Amino acid sequence: MPRFFMAGTNLAGGRAYIRGQDAEHVRVLRLRPGEDVVICDGAGKDYRCRIVSSLAGEVEAEVVEVVPCRGEPAADVTVYAGLPKGERADYLIQKCVEAGAKRIVFFECERCVARLDGRGVDKKLERFNRISQAAAEQSGRGIIPRVEYIHDYVEMLDSAVKAGACLFMYETGEDRSPLREAIEAAGDFSSISLITGPEGGFSPAEARLAKGAGAVLCSMGERIFRCETAPVVAVTAVMYARGEL
Amino acid sequence: MPRFFMAGTNLAGGRAYIRGQDAEHVRVLRLRPGEDVVICDGAGKDYRCRIVSSLAGEVEAEVVEVVPCRGEPAADVTVYAGLPKGERADYLIQKCVEAGAKRIVFFECERCVARLDGRGVDKKLERFNRISQAAAEQSGRGIIPRVEYIHDYVEMLDSAVKAGACLFMYETGEDRSPLREAIEAAGDFSSISLITGPEGGFSPAEARLAKGAGAVLCSMGERIFRCETAPVVAVTAVMYARGEL
Repeated sequence: MPRFFMAGTNLAGGRAYIRGQDAEHVRVLRLRPGEDVVICDGAGKDYRCRIVSSLAGEVEAEVVEVVPCRGEPAADVTVYAGLPKGERADYLIQKCVEAGAKRIVFFECERCVARLDGRGVDKKLERFNRISQAAAEQSGRGIIPRVEYIHDYVEMLDSAVKAGACLFMYETGEDRSPLREAIEAAGDFSSISLITGPEGGFSPAEARLAKGAGAVLCSMGERIFRCETAPVVAVTAVMYARGEL
Repeated sequence: MPRFFMAGTNLAGGRAYIRGQDAEHVRVLRLRPGEDVVICDGAGKDYRCRIVSSLAGEVEAEVVEVVPCRGEPAADVTVYAGLPKGERADYLIQKCVEAGAKRIVFFECERCVARLDGRGVDKKLERFNRISQAAAEQSGRGIIPRVEYIHDYVEMLDSAVKAGACLFMYETGEDRSPLREAIEAAGDFSSISLITGPEGGFSPAEARLAKGAGAVLCSMGERIFRCETAPVVAVTAVMYARGEL
């Protein structure tokens, strides 16, 4: 069934009013009166609605049923990812949203090739958040995961370690836990941060800083993941451990 | 360290001879005598070699050490995927190889949009296998996972159920096990088949056939994965369960 995200203000008295781009989307999908759509309020609730009328610019629908959105995982996972180049960032967002991340924070670090500055940040984030919304609609999520940007590495770490558990994926060094052990050792966390590097990985100094800040350095087995694959694998590991798969 | 796959015949008497495209690759990477490369025999062994001489078309290297390739997972996972359209297939191969699949078999089914026929198959498979090789080299695998194509759905099922466990990812229906439960119930399998659908998913008839053939119908939680994401998530789940992460 087609899904739309819509703020609660358009849901009143058992009626839903779909306007703007979403109304256009209804038209493109050739949905007609009598057909059903799901409107998600972006806060974890799904409104199953039946289309009553469909005019240019406004679709009116009747709310048939209100249910908690089942596609929304209970685990609260934030991905912190060293900003990758070009399409890799788009891909990372799409797949992490499908996999169940609740928030994606890009940051800059030593070996980042991609850089964001000034006005570029706002434009990029707008685009990134549109990708997140599309992926959330398509995969049946109950929220639209926010995509953010933290320029400063230390500020990023400060934010990441505030979660119940904070795991830092690091490709080298002796002093690492296997990811599975780290997830299991973290126990019954209510939220978790998963930090992954850019194309060139993290520098030893960055790993030391992360460890000093309280993150657990983790290995992901003996294979080397691309920077856009590692966060998807890490989120999936958490979802598996948490019974969401 | 740069990695190459090379048949054992070029590894003799403590010397390795890198020829053709790989020799060109050494030149592109500007590797010079005295520098190290890893040559993997594609059968799970890594030869650490030091370059002795580098001429156009042939690089000679001395074998320093022979070790089992650590990047090769013990779990024997084959992905059977309904052939998706265009770039999705490329992506599926790249990510499943990174995640640790040992073999990828595309097949045709009711809701496949993409079709392969006659000469098209060989050309496509050649390209698919090149993508697999590149991903295997990049992620440090010990083998190059083969990409194959089985036209017939029933033949595909016959092949898939020969593994120790055979899980069929299905988006709808009551009669499904959560993926995690199915993996755990499969116990100590030596090989596993993971079957995933094309863009439009499987038809109810196809799911019944799979069940009849002995596959376990599985849900992957409440989120809906794209056809190129589902196999990567499923392979990752098996790797997690098997202690490879």
